[in-house]
Amino acid sequence: MNEQALRTLLEQVRCGGVTTETALQRLRLLPVQELGSARLDHHRSVRTGLPEAVFAEYKSAEQLTSILEAMLSQQNVVVATRVNPAKAELVCRELDGLCYHASARILTGNDQYIEKVEGGLITLVTAGTSDIPVAEEARVTLAQFGHATKTVYDAGVAGIHRILFEAELLQQSRVVIVIAGMEGALPSVVAGMTPAPVIAVPTSVGYGAGAGGYAALLGMLNSCAPGLAVVNIDNGFGAACMAAAINRAHDHKA
Amino acid sequence: MNEQALRTLLEQVRCGGVTTETALQRLRLLPVQELGSARLDHHRSVRTGLPEAVFAEYKSAEQLTSILEAMLSQQNVVVATRVNPAKAELVCRELDGLCYHASARILTGNDQYIEKVEGGLITLVTAGTSDIPVAEEARVTLAQFGHATKTVYDAGVAGIHRILFEAELLQQSRVVIVIAGMEGALPSVVAGMTPAPVIAVPTSVGYGAGAGGYAALLGMLNSCAPGLAVVNIDNGFGAACMAAAINRAHDHKA
Amino acid sequence: MNEQALRTLLEQVRCGGVTTETALQRLRLLPVQELGSARLDHHRSVRTGLPEAVFAEYKSAEQLTSILEAMLSQQNVVVATRVNPAKAELVCRELDGLCYHASARILTGNDQYIEKVEGGLITLVTAGTSDIPVAEEARVTLAQFGHATKTVYDAGVAGIHRILFEAELLQQSRVVIVIAGMEGALPSVVAGMTPAPVIAVPTSVGYGAGAGGYAALLGMLNSCAPGLAVVNIDNGFGAACMAAAINRAHDHKA
Amino acid sequence: MNEQALRTLLEQVRCGGVTTETALQRLRLLPVQELGSARLDHHRSVRTGLPEAVFAEYKSAEQLTSILEAMLSQQNVVVATRVNPAKAELVCRELDGLCYHASARILTGNDQYIEKVEGGLITLVTAGTSDIPVAEEARVTLAQFGHATKTVYDAGVAGIHRILFEAELLQQSRVVIVIAGMEGALPSVVAGMTPAPVIAVPTSVGYGAGAGGYAALLGMLNSCAPGLAVVNIDNGFGAACMAAAINRAHDHKA
Amino acid sequence: MNEQALRTLLEQVRCGGVTTETALQRLRLLPVQELGSARLDHHRSVRTGLPEAVFAEYKSAEQLTSILEAMLSQQNVVVATRVNPAKAELVCRELDGLCYHASARILTGNDQYIEKVEGGLITLVTAGTSDIPVAEEARVTLAQFGHATKTVYDAGVAGIHRILFEAELLQQSRVVIVIAGMEGALPSVVAGMTPAPVIAVPTSVGYGAGAGGYAALLGMLNSCAPGLAVVNIDNGFGAACMAAAINRAHDHKA
Amino acid sequence: MNEQALRTLLEQVRCGGVTTETALQRLRLLPVQELGSARLDHHRSVRTGLPEAVFAEYKSAEQLTSILEAMLSQQNVVVATRVNPAKAELVCRELDGLCYHASARILTGNDQYIEKVEGGLITLVTAGTSDIPVAEEARVTLAQFGHATKTVYDAGVAGIHRILFEAELLQQSRVVIVIAGMEGALPSVVAGMTPAPVIAVPTSVGYGAGAGGYAALLGMLNSCAPGLAVVNIDNGFGAACMAAAINRAHDHKA
Amino acid sequence: MNEQALRTLLEQVRCGGVTTETALQRLRLLPVQELGSARLDHHRSVRTGLPEAVFAEYKSAEQLTSILEAMLSQQNVVVATRVNPAKAELVCRELDGLCYHASARILTGNDQYIEKVEGGLITLVTAGTSDIPVAEEARVTLAQFGHATKTVYDAGVAGIHRILFEAELLQQSRVVIVIAGMEGALPSVVAGMTPAPVIAVPTSVGYGAGAGGYAALLGMLNSCAPGLAVVNIDNGFGAACMAAAINRAHDHKA
Amino acid sequence: MNEQALRTLLEQVRCGGVTTETALQRLRLLPVQELGSARLDHHRSVRTGLPEAVFAEYKSAEQLTSILEAMLSQQNVVVATRVNPAKAELVCRELDGLCYHASARILTGNDQYIEKVEGGLITLVTAGTSDIPVAEEARVTLAQFGHATKTVYDAGVAGIHRILFEAELLQQSRVVIVIAGMEGALPSVVAGMTPAPVIAVPTSVGYGAGAGGYAALLGMLNSCAPGLAVVNIDNGFGAACMAAAINRAHDHKA
Repeated sequence: MNEQALRTLLEQVRCGGVTTETALQRLRLLPVQELGSARLDHHRSVRTGLPEAVFAEYKSAEQLTSILEAMLSQQNVVVATRVNPAKAELVCRELDGLCYHASARILTGNDQYIEKVEGGLITLVTAGTSDIPVAEEARVTLAQFGHATKTVYDAGVAGIHRILFEAELLQQSRVVIVIAGMEGALPSVVAGMTPAPVIAVPTSVGYGAGAGGYAALLGMLNSCAPGLAVVNIDNGFGAACMAAAINRAHDHKA
Repeated sequence: MNEQALRTLLEQVRCGGVTTETALQRLRLLPVQELGSARLDHHRSVRTGLPEAVFAEYKSAEQLTSILEAMLSQQNVVVATRVNPAKAELVCRELDGLCYHASARILTGNDQYIEKVEGGLITLVTAGTSDIPVAEEARVTLAQFGHATKTVYDAGVAGIHRILFEAELLQQSRVVIVIAGMEGALPSVVAGMTPAPVIAVPTSVGYGAGAGGYAALLGMLNSCAPGLAVVNIDNGFGAACMAAAINRAHDHKA
Repeated sequence: MNEQALRTLLEQVRCGGVTTETALQRLRLLPVQELGSARLDHHRSVRTGLPEAVFAEYKSAEQLTSILEAMLSQQNVVVATRVNPAKAELVCRELDGLCYHASARILTGNDQYIEKVEGGLITLVTAGTSDIPVAEEARVTLAQFGHATKTVYDAGVAGIHRILFEAELLQQSRVVIVIAGMEGALPSVVAGMTPAPVIAVPTSVGYGAGAGGYAALLGMLNSCAPGLAVVNIDNGFGAACMAAAINRAHDHKA
Repeated sequence: MNEQALRTLLEQVRCGGVTTETALQRLRLLPVQELGSARLDHHRSVRTGLPEAVFAEYKSAEQLTSILEAMLSQQNVVVATRVNPAKAELVCRELDGLCYHASARILTGNDQYIEKVEGGLITLVTAGTSDIPVAEEARVTLAQFGHATKTVYDAGVAGIHRILFEAELLQQSRVVIVIAGMEGALPSVVAGMTPAPVIAVPTSVGYGAGAGGYAALLGMLNSCAPGLAVVNIDNGFGAACMAAAINRAHDHKA
Repeated sequence: MNEQALRTLLEQVRCGGVTTETALQRLRLLPVQELGSARLDHHRSVRTGLPEAVFAEYKSAEQLTSILEAMLSQQNVVVATRVNPAKAELVCRELDGLCYHASARILTGNDQYIEKVEGGLITLVTAGTSDIPVAEEARVTLAQFGHATKTVYDAGVAGIHRILFEAELLQQSRVVIVIAGMEGALPSVVAGMTPAPVIAVPTSVGYGAGAGGYAALLGMLNSCAPGLAVVNIDNGFGAACMAAAINRAHDHKA
Repeated sequence: MNEQALRTLLEQVRCGGVTTETALQRLRLLPVQELGSARLDHHRSVRTGLPEAVFAEYKSAEQLTSILEAMLSQQNVVVATRVNPAKAELVCRELDGLCYHASARILTGNDQYIEKVEGGLITLVTAGTSDIPVAEEARVTLAQFGHATKTVYDAGVAGIHRILFEAELLQQSRVVIVIAGMEGALPSVVAGMTPAPVIAVPTSVGYGAGAGGYAALLGMLNSCAPGLAVVNIDNGFGAACMAAAINRAHDHKA
Repeated sequence: MNEQALRTLLEQVRCGGVTTETALQRLRLLPVQELGSARLDHHRSVRTGLPEAVFAEYKSAEQLTSILEAMLSQQNVVVATRVNPAKAELVCRELDGLCYHASARILTGNDQYIEKVEGGLITLVTAGTSDIPVAEEARVTLAQFGHATKTVYDAGVAGIHRILFEAELLQQSRVVIVIAGMEGALPSVVAGMTPAPVIAVPTSVGYGAGAGGYAALLGMLNSCAPGLAVVNIDNGFGAACMAAAINRAHDHKA
Repeated sequence: MNEQALRTLLEQVRCGGVTTETALQRLRLLPVQELGSARLDHHRSVRTGLPEAVFAEYKSAEQLTSILEAMLSQQNVVVATRVNPAKAELVCRELDGLCYHASARILTGNDQYIEKVEGGLITLVTAGTSDIPVAEEARVTLAQFGHATKTVYDAGVAGIHRILFEAELLQQSRVVIVIAGMEGALPSVVAGMTPAPVIAVPTSVGYGAGAGGYAALLGMLNSCAPGLAVVNIDNGFGAACMAAAINRAHDHKA
């Protein structure tokens, strides 16, 4: 029962075409399924303030192609994450207007529909060069969502002066995303240098005990610095969504 | 070498009391330690935008008393977390003007110095009643930091209608903190209902496999909902700091 | 907005006291919260077919007393699990009509309101004597829920003939709950001997590697026997609920 | 010693051809091995109420072919699980009358011998589209076992209205199987909406911390909703067997 | 149906008091339960060659007292393991003729019924002094089971000469039990020095990563030396049983 | 300094060709290295009673060929474990007289030099057919070491009668090796049926939680049956060595 | 057989009092036990260059007293670690001349026998104040071993300037021990600032995921900075021994 | 602002070209970024005393080629670790003067610029032959860093005499690196035989429980021998850096 059907029902009650009890009966039976749906089933972008993005990891090239074709035609901004090069090539052969970001493993399109967000600056920091693909997943996602970003790559704690140089930028950022593998120590340092909320992203860079990002994840969860929260290992997209939610809240207020 | 000492040195250079080389020597040796310090060694609250808080877990009643005495006299807002009842009683016997929040296990004081933050509403949601102490740690901390909060306690997913009732509130919040133990599913549901950034706090409520908060933590890190980040198990204070950082950023802009 | 309020609103639409658009507005804003609630907010027992039970682990004696007092006066069957002896004693001092099952750590009351379920027999099997408290938690819960149970205690696999003696009983049961710690092997043996669904409950009995019930839990999850599912470690109450749900479904059909 | 041999022995006792003591000796030595076998060694389907199914994971195409050939000729319903496409192709080249269900990775045959079970409806729910293969393993298995199923795919908690729409179906089901990866939260929600027993199946969909299905498994074991039990990660077949055992018990009674 | 009942039945068949078919019916129904039991239900000591021992960990002083009272009166050798001092004192107050081995945490009695095993020497080696209680649990158990033992305590690998001094003894032993916590390296060294089978017992001595005996357990499972098997952490009793089984097999042959 | 060299030195001392001090000097400097070596550096087979075996996992076909060539020419019994088919083929192309056991993944040779051990029977039991390769690794190894073996394959606990049939064989065995994956329950059942020492071998057969053999390993370590010890996951060779050590000890005595 | 006994034996060979064969026999039987011992059985302090220290954790006050009494009388430097206050008090009541270091939980004595090591400076750095007890365990141990130490306590990465101030000291140290709990990030920063070898000590300070020092341990093992090695959680004594070994090597050379 | 720029600024202050306040302003704004950098941003080799090395694991052949080309032309000693054979071949095709160490998986070059370190001997010990690649990574790295090394390969604890033979060498070494997989017991034995600091390197050699190097890692962390610290699994390079730092400290003093 969508809004139109509900209006019709109420009109019928008003003009006597349907009795109060009959209307009550229908409303009692259906509210969650249908009114509930009318309320909740808006596009997720309305409800959560985030554009739809396609998680392509488990989708075949064919499935991905048909989904993106629809998004392109509906004038939605396109973001498809976790697209490996082979899949990207197959999709791009079929569809025009897509751009493949190899490091980020993202396909984008319909950039003309990006709405600039009037928020602050989102700064992305990585500890090493091996962490850059995860950072790029976040950066490209944020760009498609309309957010301004800056990047500080390869500024890990074993050469601590590198991040100290960026103190000013960190102070000016609205949100800082810090991406680090190995011991995952950089977010603690950064969170001690800025009033901005820090989103820490552990990466699976590393080996031996704690490999697969576990050392970094545990380190970040145990950070002694306040103003920091964590997303899952290698989850650049998730960090981008959190940053966007923070920055949109910001935007919203203005 | 603080700013005054630096000015004096430069004056001496200017008037010839110190040679260029001598000044260079002193500046070359000391910059990080001292100029760096002049820049970095502001109170942490200036650098990170968060008031100082005392983590009392490993401190004796005596140590805690002397720290809080100093904070009270310096007209700082007082927040001491992880204070058990016995320690609280000992401290309150020594010092006037402290208030003990038993559920939150927090001692507060100097509330007259709280500066109201001009941000939005921070909503705290718990899945069960056993999660309330962690939520209270966050709520009391945020109150001392000057943020407005609302609470929705005991709205877990096994009775899904309970959180659905709060859809409006969730839509209006600037930040939502969701605290849940057991399977930790609530943050995913909430993040699907609001544009606000969601800070998920796993709690150690539960037993058997995944006890100690691990099931909840892993569930939250694996959330399929975007716009969500996680702090450590039972870390209500950490969630409050992240929320404050987000809300301050907001405030900052205005 | 409960059913009465909805009827009133529809009446007002019908008689023109409220315009269609106004009614639509109210219905659009509220359906999930209120109509949804009207639909969903029945007592959980109506929705899930299981009586309410109180999980007392994290509740103080005072809290537990006031909850049970209300349940007793509302003529609900009373089941409060995870009540340690000290808490039980305090509660029983305050309230009449409660019975404490020490091994099961359960408080029961209002037994006169138990409704017998017309289902089959639920058999509880334990591997050792140390597993009996968990079995008793399940047995007492099922008794309060109105189910018929039989018990076969101390029939572990190191003396395999003990369970073989019970082949007939296992064949006749509608549901079998098997409770085992240590290596947790018994559910596999039982599931190979009966057409009934087997609910496996690992217990925290044991020591060394795999202590805390992990060896038993993993063993049960890896069972090579079909027709078996698992609940959390020591979760006798959860096993009872699953068994009740199975047996009720049975009952329902008749 | 099968039943015939036992009868012969008793006849010999009766007619004096064998003394009581000799018979006693033979019976004392052999009962478990032989009488026991006569009793126990029925086809597993008689003992456990579940048709035989072939777990093909570790079997070569040759081994699988010869097993299935025998089953086909013996007029048994054929279910072979965990058959990858290459193996399926090899087997189907050799044997007629098999059907390969690619998503479920199951080979079926002899459908004409399926005996319809007079039980209720078994509903299969998945959280995401990536969980569908595990659900299909359960669904195809149940179909071969003669059970009626319905499916609700892609109804995860990040869009909570999707499962709310299915409240009526959940209420009418005899058994509900809920398949979910990531945070594994859906079974808790479902178990709060239905009186039916819920079988929760964690899937290995996901990445980072808790990958491989561990986050989902732990979440389901820690579910705060009663009436729910869990099978191993990706174990669609195991869930089907448990559901069949529950539904057969049902059938049995009628 | 015990042996006597079976004889009676056969007699009845012989004399025509029971028909062949009736006897067949009774035998077909009962064999596993009753004949099976007649065969299997010997005292465990007959079936497995090991005397009964009481695992007292989860038993109250009252329960333990009544079990031991029975064992004492039945002229069984008494071994009760995991008896803490308080429980031991309570039991010894009630029963005469028990001896408490404090380090081993074992109560023994009826030593006059110990049957000497005609096997070889069982040597117990510990790495450190902290491992001695576990070794003593094994030693006292073996003494009650009638086996000859020698001990080499405090011969860990950080002073490798200590175990080298015992090369001769190790060569002469029939079984060697090596008990070690920390890194658990000693069993590998010992297994390289003797033809005897080595039973490795990890102990929970240690701290930090790998505490609780996990480092030792994993080390022993990964031993590069052949002729070595492992029992659970701190399981001195289990090691004794394995050693006894090996040594009895030996004895048996003679 | 081998025994011969030592004798020569002593002869020289006796006849005055070497002074006492010179001899002392040589003996003082070298004892561990040389006398120690004379004592310790016998072929491992002398010291530990086990023939040399080659662990081929990490060796190239070339390395393996040259090692086996030497062993063949030195008239040693050849056992090379963990040889994959490709490597086996390469080696067999180079060397005559080798036999490849595909299921066991073992290369053997020089069988004419096998010395029969005068011990008892070693019985190998597997729970499933997938466990057979590990059992075969043990069986072939034992054959090369000169031990008599029998096998009972596919006798897992979900069809408990299968192992009950073998009660007699289990009673007659000197050692029983039980190989099981999944829940690893079979060793407990077997250890309750025989006086022989039971060596439990967990296998990596299984999936989901506890995969890789962990569920089986933990189950076996937590076995409630006495007279059982465990080797590492899939370690058929290790089990064979332990069984050989037990059986040799036996042999030794005769 | 010590050196003197060996000389005597050789003399007897030389003068004919003992035949070559008899001498050979004795040397063949005993070398490892006795010559080996003569070589290896020096006091550990001679062999490893480290004074003896007593690990008191598992020792009773009585045991500890008698050990320390002997050490005091033998004019050994006394270091007993892991002595809790109660045990310390009991011991000190019995023995004169001991000093209890409460934070370090160490008893020391016979300081007059400390030999100053001619090495460099060992600097101890902690991240937080809660890490100080572990640092003190290292510092007091090093003092007893004769090494010069400096301490920099409470210099964690969330206030990165604190460690930057100490750049000069770090450059001048021969060894740096860095003690940190929580995320354990400080050793990476320090190792990037000094040419000295860094010994990282994780502490069990922290809570939630990674508690007990695991997050810190994994972080340190995964450090991206070279020139760093790790000891076990809270193992201040172990760090001191490693530092002493490094610094002694240094000393040795001079 | 480098040193030259700072000198210029001070000159300008001296001669009045810049006011004190202007200079102060520039120094206050920039110190960390620029003076800090001037101080800290020396080549890492100056700051940490270790030459640069390239971690090639995550670098493409193209990236690696360009980095090494630069290093070769700048007359730096070249060490690139974790170079697989395919990548090595591609790089060597492009660049002259590189040498590939296949076992160590290292590319070296510019050996003429190696500066010999005047330290002691660094001895590398492995437990088995499978551990040699990790040892070679350490050995080749140390050679490029200018350190003298000796190797003792295949001296594991199951044949304890092998390491005993090397007692003299161990006594003479300045640093000992012990590389071991499986149970990782060798470092404890070695640390008990030498005054030198021991760096323990667990390797991923092994299988089953504790595979991937975890058993060895935990064993080493729990070593009962003092004077030992640990690096991450398979981290031969890290061990070399630690050894170099220790040996350089040594060198430094001379």
